[in-house]
Amino acid sequence: MPDTIYERFITTRQATETICKPLATEDYSVQPNPDVSPPKWHLAHSTWFFEQFVSREFDSEYKVYSEDFAYLFNSYYNNAGERVLRPNRGLMTRPTVEQVLNYRNYVTEAVKKLMVKNTSPELLELIEVGINHEQQHQELLVYDIKYILGNQPTFPVYNGAFTQQKEGQNDGWINIQEGVYTIGHQGNDFCFDNELGVHKVYLHNAQISSKLVTNAEYIEFIEAGGYEDFNLWHAEGWDFVKKNELKAPLYWHKVNNEWHYYDFSGLSKIAPELPVMHVSYYEAFAFAEWKKMRLPTEFEWEIAADELNWGHVWEWTGSAYLPYPNFTKAAGALGEYNGKFMVSLHVLRGASIGTAEGHSRKTYRNFFHPSSRWQFAGIRLAK
Amino acid sequence: MPDTIYERFITTRQATETICKPLATEDYSVQPNPDVSPPKWHLAHSTWFFEQFVSREFDSEYKVYSEDFAYLFNSYYNNAGERVLRPNRGLMTRPTVEQVLNYRNYVTEAVKKLMVKNTSPELLELIEVGINHEQQHQELLVYDIKYILGNQPTFPVYNGAFTQQKEGQNDGWINIQEGVYTIGHQGNDFCFDNELGVHKVYLHNAQISSKLVTNAEYIEFIEAGGYEDFNLWHAEGWDFVKKNELKAPLYWHKVNNEWHYYDFSGLSKIAPELPVMHVSYYEAFAFAEWKKMRLPTEFEWEIAADELNWGHVWEWTGSAYLPYPNFTKAAGALGEYNGKFMVSLHVLRGASIGTAEGHSRKTYRNFFHPSSRWQFAGIRLAK
Amino acid sequence: MPDTIYERFITTRQATETICKPLATEDYSVQPNPDVSPPKWHLAHSTWFFEQFVSREFDSEYKVYSEDFAYLFNSYYNNAGERVLRPNRGLMTRPTVEQVLNYRNYVTEAVKKLMVKNTSPELLELIEVGINHEQQHQELLVYDIKYILGNQPTFPVYNGAFTQQKEGQNDGWINIQEGVYTIGHQGNDFCFDNELGVHKVYLHNAQISSKLVTNAEYIEFIEAGGYEDFNLWHAEGWDFVKKNELKAPLYWHKVNNEWHYYDFSGLSKIAPELPVMHVSYYEAFAFAEWKKMRLPTEFEWEIAADELNWGHVWEWTGSAYLPYPNFTKAAGALGEYNGKFMVSLHVLRGASIGTAEGHSRKTYRNFFHPSSRWQFAGIRLAK
Amino acid sequence: MPDTIYERFITTRQATETICKPLATEDYSVQPNPDVSPPKWHLAHSTWFFEQFVSREFDSEYKVYSEDFAYLFNSYYNNAGERVLRPNRGLMTRPTVEQVLNYRNYVTEAVKKLMVKNTSPELLELIEVGINHEQQHQELLVYDIKYILGNQPTFPVYNGAFTQQKEGQNDGWINIQEGVYTIGHQGNDFCFDNELGVHKVYLHNAQISSKLVTNAEYIEFIEAGGYEDFNLWHAEGWDFVKKNELKAPLYWHKVNNEWHYYDFSGLSKIAPELPVMHVSYYEAFAFAEWKKMRLPTEFEWEIAADELNWGHVWEWTGSAYLPYPNFTKAAGALGEYNGKFMVSLHVLRGASIGTAEGHSRKTYRNFFHPSSRWQFAGIRLAK
Repeated sequence: MPDTIYERFITTRQATETICKPLATEDYSVQPNPDVSPPKWHLAHSTWFFEQFVSREFDSEYKVYSEDFAYLFNSYYNNAGERVLRPNRGLMTRPTVEQVLNYRNYVTEAVKKLMVKNTSPELLELIEVGINHEQQHQELLVYDIKYILGNQPTFPVYNGAFTQQKEGQNDGWINIQEGVYTIGHQGNDFCFDNELGVHKVYLHNAQISSKLVTNAEYIEFIEAGGYEDFNLWHAEGWDFVKKNELKAPLYWHKVNNEWHYYDFSGLSKIAPELPVMHVSYYEAFAFAEWKKMRLPTEFEWEIAADELNWGHVWEWTGSAYLPYPNFTKAAGALGEYNGKFMVSLHVLRGASIGTAEGHSRKTYRNFFHPSSRWQFAGIRLAK
Repeated sequence: MPDTIYERFITTRQATETICKPLATEDYSVQPNPDVSPPKWHLAHSTWFFEQFVSREFDSEYKVYSEDFAYLFNSYYNNAGERVLRPNRGLMTRPTVEQVLNYRNYVTEAVKKLMVKNTSPELLELIEVGINHEQQHQELLVYDIKYILGNQPTFPVYNGAFTQQKEGQNDGWINIQEGVYTIGHQGNDFCFDNELGVHKVYLHNAQISSKLVTNAEYIEFIEAGGYEDFNLWHAEGWDFVKKNELKAPLYWHKVNNEWHYYDFSGLSKIAPELPVMHVSYYEAFAFAEWKKMRLPTEFEWEIAADELNWGHVWEWTGSAYLPYPNFTKAAGALGEYNGKFMVSLHVLRGASIGTAEGHSRKTYRNFFHPSSRWQFAGIRLAK
Repeated sequence: MPDTIYERFITTRQATETICKPLATEDYSVQPNPDVSPPKWHLAHSTWFFEQFVSREFDSEYKVYSEDFAYLFNSYYNNAGERVLRPNRGLMTRPTVEQVLNYRNYVTEAVKKLMVKNTSPELLELIEVGINHEQQHQELLVYDIKYILGNQPTFPVYNGAFTQQKEGQNDGWINIQEGVYTIGHQGNDFCFDNELGVHKVYLHNAQISSKLVTNAEYIEFIEAGGYEDFNLWHAEGWDFVKKNELKAPLYWHKVNNEWHYYDFSGLSKIAPELPVMHVSYYEAFAFAEWKKMRLPTEFEWEIAADELNWGHVWEWTGSAYLPYPNFTKAAGALGEYNGKFMVSLHVLRGASIGTAEGHSRKTYRNFFHPSSRWQFAGIRLAK
Repeated sequence: MPDTIYERFITTRQATETICKPLATEDYSVQPNPDVSPPKWHLAHSTWFFEQFVSREFDSEYKVYSEDFAYLFNSYYNNAGERVLRPNRGLMTRPTVEQVLNYRNYVTEAVKKLMVKNTSPELLELIEVGINHEQQHQELLVYDIKYILGNQPTFPVYNGAFTQQKEGQNDGWINIQEGVYTIGHQGNDFCFDNELGVHKVYLHNAQISSKLVTNAEYIEFIEAGGYEDFNLWHAEGWDFVKKNELKAPLYWHKVNNEWHYYDFSGLSKIAPELPVMHVSYYEAFAFAEWKKMRLPTEFEWEIAADELNWGHVWEWTGSAYLPYPNFTKAAGALGEYNGKFMVSLHVLRGASIGTAEGHSRKTYRNFFHPSSRWQFAGIRLAK
């Protein structure tokens, strides 16, 4: 990572805006479901983060852009009681996109100026957090844009970015030897609090597949009646399948009796050789059951990572998202960052084609609810 | 009404666009609740109506603008089964506002050309229906815009249109003499099917107030505990109040212990002398109970209309929305127009500051659910 | 009605218990949906009514059976705030059935003693209200028992009571002449407040069918695709049909491709010649649309009543349940009786095989929500 | 465990009935929420288990008691499609309690006779499973009865069983030394499939409290504002608290400003020295956060178990309920037993005052949803 933090700050701020470029103004403000945030919100919230934790804290001359914005785009509504109306992300047509872009610009310039004057490690550390926070939002932005466009009956094209590419996958299995291993992030480069607490785990003999499950294999599962056989599913997963009448991954549609899917190039026939994406943990689990295998744990994954060709899709693991031994929350508002989600979610490891450059590492612990399907998630088997 | 229908067609089409002028692009696509349609949808749907029933039927050279639009903007989704995805009004960011305005223009021009060539009464009758249909949507558009803007925590200003004006109201009571009266629309000018079926009703002696209930009177009701005394309410109304924690009309907010409301000029103190607006039927009924009076029936209203100063707000009546004797639906798709709503709704009479010019008459039967509050509705008492 | 009120009081109290005789103890306490009350609740509530409005008011020596019961079995929970737990009808296993029967007996005996000592008209009037109140609950009890038993997968037999009997129906139409008619209850015998306010209505020429729609005719409607053609339905009715996947009246089941229904004798093939029962207002309306006719208004029905063979099933009318001119609520708690339901409901006229003896008259205004199907309601056509 | 399996079978069958003895017939059939089953269902289902897996499989002369019962009381409704009506546990008034007790007796006697003739290990193994299955249901029965009675506004007394007793608790901390430990059930006595797969784990230095958190300590947490400080909670837990307006454990009520709770002796003041019960995982976690400690993992618990005074309440652990390495489902219907619940739940270790005698061991993995509060669950801290 040869770039200076100053350069990376600028690159990151620009990258967020670049992701939004292909959108129409109308696309910025809708929220099709509670998990999806409007693109405008991501643009503003990642800005608010710098304003709140960098400019307000470190820049005595900083003038708040707008108290309204500060109120509308933070995620911590718990103190917001004295306002007349609570913001509702998916109905917030004002401020407009243009106003939000002005806000972005204002804060970006302020932080740039500040970085010239002040190079204290405390400031740089917070800017590093802000960059990583914004990179996380970049990936969510990609997911959310796909969800918004992919639910238009006209299946509009975005552009060629963030679509899967063919790449060779080797058949084969990586062996893990029984024994004690060390887990967690080491070294001084940036990581999130949930990766810290380096600790030991005991692993048993296991094998992890070198390759990801493909669309072709997943279609076999569908055609073998995978979505109709409750023996393959968790009880909760089966309820989810029945309630939502699931028959395939998200974005898949049967057109003229052939499976198609929506991606950023529009609706097209499914490419059989590509890794399957947009499955929930329930589906990943049921697929593994059908194969009479299982998903790797996050620890197996981390130990095998160097031998895996990862980065294409996030990979569901069999591990629940829990604190590492000696996990401690950061102090203050930043402490809400990860710990409060450590119940009911599952860990995904790896990275995806939607992950920001320089934002992936083998100790990264991503996490989603077992029912989530809009993130770029796929399946790797273990046994 | 001295204008030709050709002129009225053009005026009506323009008026719809004028209503939308003060909006930001972002305001066009959201749907804060199922009763509210996005402004873009009104723009497109009123256009679809002309395309479907005028251009396609009468203009052999007409080329459909887009089958997608025809599918997306009709209200009759029942035959739409073969599409992959169903349109969801509030999430439809595409087509964009600009594309919809192009669609409007295309159809407007096509109809104008057609009207020059073809002056058959059949065509003109349908254009007349289309004009009236669009005028109805103009009023809904005003309601929906108010709802969208009025639910922004920043309470944005629209402009000065559609805000209440002070006008003198005379105290006093209009007497209705017991006897047989004739109800329903007579004459050859346009009316909706639900006004037809001229028939007789027997009315008993009654008195209708010359004036509408004011904000000041309504505040008295609130302060007397009207929203806390279940004896004043229908059982269903009481459930509605409790479930939604109602304490005042829609758009009212207590700020620093004083009642304010949102209107198109922003948030301001309530003007006590103006007629109260944005109450449900339940609230209108409870207010009348509190006054130990009642609401007029729609028949009493129609008979008294010539002596009333009406047109400021729609006025809730005590009458359920039911077919007149000998009501018959129009043939074909137009037959869906009114009849299918004749259950569970209440009649409102009059017109409001949001009603299109030339679109009000004393036989007009407006109808809403007893719980609806976003339309411009107020209260007139009877005894 | 030659019986004394003393005898009628005793007969009524016994009749309620007789209706419950065939039940198992388990049947008394469940509440399969919010409209249905557990039989135990009816037993207790009709007793509470006498305790509250008769014994407590008129009998200075009366000792309340239990403050708990008084709290649990009144319908007016609005003042019940200071208790720790609110009663939930369908989960109230205590007091037991036996305890409730003891409570019944205690209050019945107390009222009997009181009637011997006190024959004031004020007391007798309240006892008359109590008798009529209990008779209403008897009919609801029959509906609720049918619903509870009819939703057991084993379709248990109750006994032969309250099942439809074949009776001759004459084809033909009753004519109503255009003119002014008088509506409402006249005379001094008991009636409910909603029948009072004798008033005039103007009726137009109309015809009412002499006979009720039969199961055979209704099966024709089903087989002609009545439940699939949205043109026949109110918009609200169509939503109801779709949401609940309705394909036939309540209690109908297709077994081996033949329509069966549950009645108090168990599951059996449908008798084609009997009047159809257990339809909602939406279904009655759609059936009439399909026949290109309509339902009578409650006024037409009342005027034609003497020429109709009514009493088999309650008959849906096209009239919304609204107050008559000059309707006034009774004072006090009894005033809640009818007025608070006068929104969103439709009037049914007649009586049914579940109606208590001596509890039917042609001015009786029964009322249910358009979606209700568990009451004994059928269809009579008009044109 | 010196008893023969024949004796233990009889004892277990009787124990279930003994638990139900204090109930009124009405208490057997209600289902106040989806987690709670009616006592009648437990009685019948634990019988069905023996009929299905023992009598039908091993007893060629066995005559099925009733195909209706077999249908109504199995948990595997997935094949039940051809029936007209699906059973609904909480509305099933028939078969009656008496009929279910007859069914119990019939199957108990049949199994007893079979055990005399057939002593094959295959049979005995299944009877062992059936006994353990019924013991699990005994504990659920206790929870469900408490929930049913505890939600009666009259707070009825059950009897003195299953109420907490004072027992000395030692202050102090058990030390766990860092190292590799062996986890899982060893030996030949009965255990569930989820305890198998003996395997190694690596534990770090830790300390577990010798004593359970008491009511007095929990009241401190409440009074310190624990239920109002979102920083202490998981995001999901905070939503749960807000949505359900939680202010205390289940069954706690504030009466005259003092905390009371319902137990099987009725409503009484809280005993401060007893271990707190009826908290969710969210509450256990928040309490630990407030104490700046944490919950033990299930592995720490198992290793420390011999030094803990456990068995009073189930103890929430920080471990999600996941399969052990090499976990394999049993073949056939019994395979559904545990594996299908291995997502979204948390492990509890120990046993409670509701646990059947001889049904507790330190490797036992109990599991509930983080939101569940009606089981007998408490808190032990670790650090």
